[in-house]
Amino acid sequence: MEPAVQRLIDRQAIVDVIHAYCRGVDTIDVALLSTVFADNCVVDYGPGLGGPTVGAAEVVARLASGLPRFASTLHRVSNVDVTFTDADVATGIAYVDAWHRYPDDRPDAVVRGCYHDRFIRVADGGWRIAERILRVAGDDHFGVDWYPVLRGG
Amino acid sequence: MEPAVQRLIDRQAIVDVIHAYCRGVDTIDVALLSTVFADNCVVDYGPGLGGPTVGAAEVVARLASGLPRFASTLHRVSNVDVTFTDADVATGIAYVDAWHRYPDDRPDAVVRGCYHDRFIRVADGGWRIAERILRVAGDDHFGVDWYPVLRGG
Amino acid sequence: MEPAVQRLIDRQAIVDVIHAYCRGVDTIDVALLSTVFADNCVVDYGPGLGGPTVGAAEVVARLASGLPRFASTLHRVSNVDVTFTDADVATGIAYVDAWHRYPDDRPDAVVRGCYHDRFIRVADGGWRIAERILRVAGDDHFGVDWYPVLRGG
Repeated sequence: MEPAVQRLIDRQAIVDVIHAYCRGVDTIDVALLSTVFADNCVVDYGPGLGGPTVGAAEVVARLASGLPRFASTLHRVSNVDVTFTDADVATGIAYVDAWHRYPDDRPDAVVRGCYHDRFIRVADGGWRIAERILRVAGDDHFGVDWYPVLRGG
Repeated sequence: MEPAVQRLIDRQAIVDVIHAYCRGVDTIDVALLSTVFADNCVVDYGPGLGGPTVGAAEVVARLASGLPRFASTLHRVSNVDVTFTDADVATGIAYVDAWHRYPDDRPDAVVRGCYHDRFIRVADGGWRIAERILRVAGDDHFGVDWYPVLRGG
Repeated sequence: MEPAVQRLIDRQAIVDVIHAYCRGVDTIDVALLSTVFADNCVVDYGPGLGGPTVGAAEVVARLASGLPRFASTLHRVSNVDVTFTDADVATGIAYVDAWHRYPDDRPDAVVRGCYHDRFIRVADGGWRIAERILRVAGDDHFGVDWYPVLRGG
């Protein structure tokens, strides 16, 4: 396979993992979420949400226990940039608009920002998230501390 | 063509059809909408919007008559997942945030959810929507019944 | 390279430029923005924002001076359509939801619309924006005149 073409195929596989994360979160699908993270992943949604969580099982357990407090969520990603470090490692930035509705009459909580990811190719040839840090441009009705989107390049 | 590469090309053609739908709706472009649906398609926006409509002409007629009640709409899709059943059939899930502005001072109506689609390759080699069901995570100011996004995988 | 495959590669390069624009704007990264526009580009955000700006340096200077009045922005693009005119020129339509937060308590300004772009391949083989016109479906709290999204195909 031509290297530029292999990159397109790998890029799509990485985008599919980003989408599987969102869908896994929004449907609270533990089996799907278990296909998303590398074993020793580090995921950090920010200081106001507890800082880094280490390990795929720990991240999935945390999501599975935290998400049911919302009646519904929708994690819309866009602007996905992928940069390959080598054939089996890539970094990415994806914009996210994560909408959360509560089961009571609290106003919807929205967080708008960027996932800063590192992806690795694992033994079966697929891609997984090895590292994810959320940086936030702004929220509505969350009221927790985030890592900011950095300006100035 | 390498099968994995043919899949990328077909995937892009399918994504282009999803976008043509949105653009056709948002510009009320009947000619464009007429390129989107397979002849015997079934499109179902949910129980609160009348349930299934059958046939491309019927779907386009319904859109063309219903959309002008809004001053403006924008159907933003993201998180497009495509799974090929075989070389000429695929299923897809696409997130949608559909924004609707009324010509009067009613608040904007927004529906956030997922298109669950089936796509088929038609005689000219292009792809069309054979089936579309909208599942909704939540709306603002629509006030109709939807099929819900299902949780639990 | 198979022409259909070259198109996929070029398409991704164009999408990457659209994303670089957004990221450059949202992080006020002048170096990144300087990679986005063709030298003699024309960029027009609409009559209420001064009409066309000509020249990459002028567009970047304008963005760099105007953006710091916001505390934060996020330009989420989706629905990217790319049509190749020939091997080195393409037109595109990309939906945008551009969110702007002020440093004071004014409500967030949001503009929802479509970038109508022309892209050209430049001397180094990369793609750049040669022309961009913003058409708007609707805004919140901007209160300026825009070019409208045109209905009727």
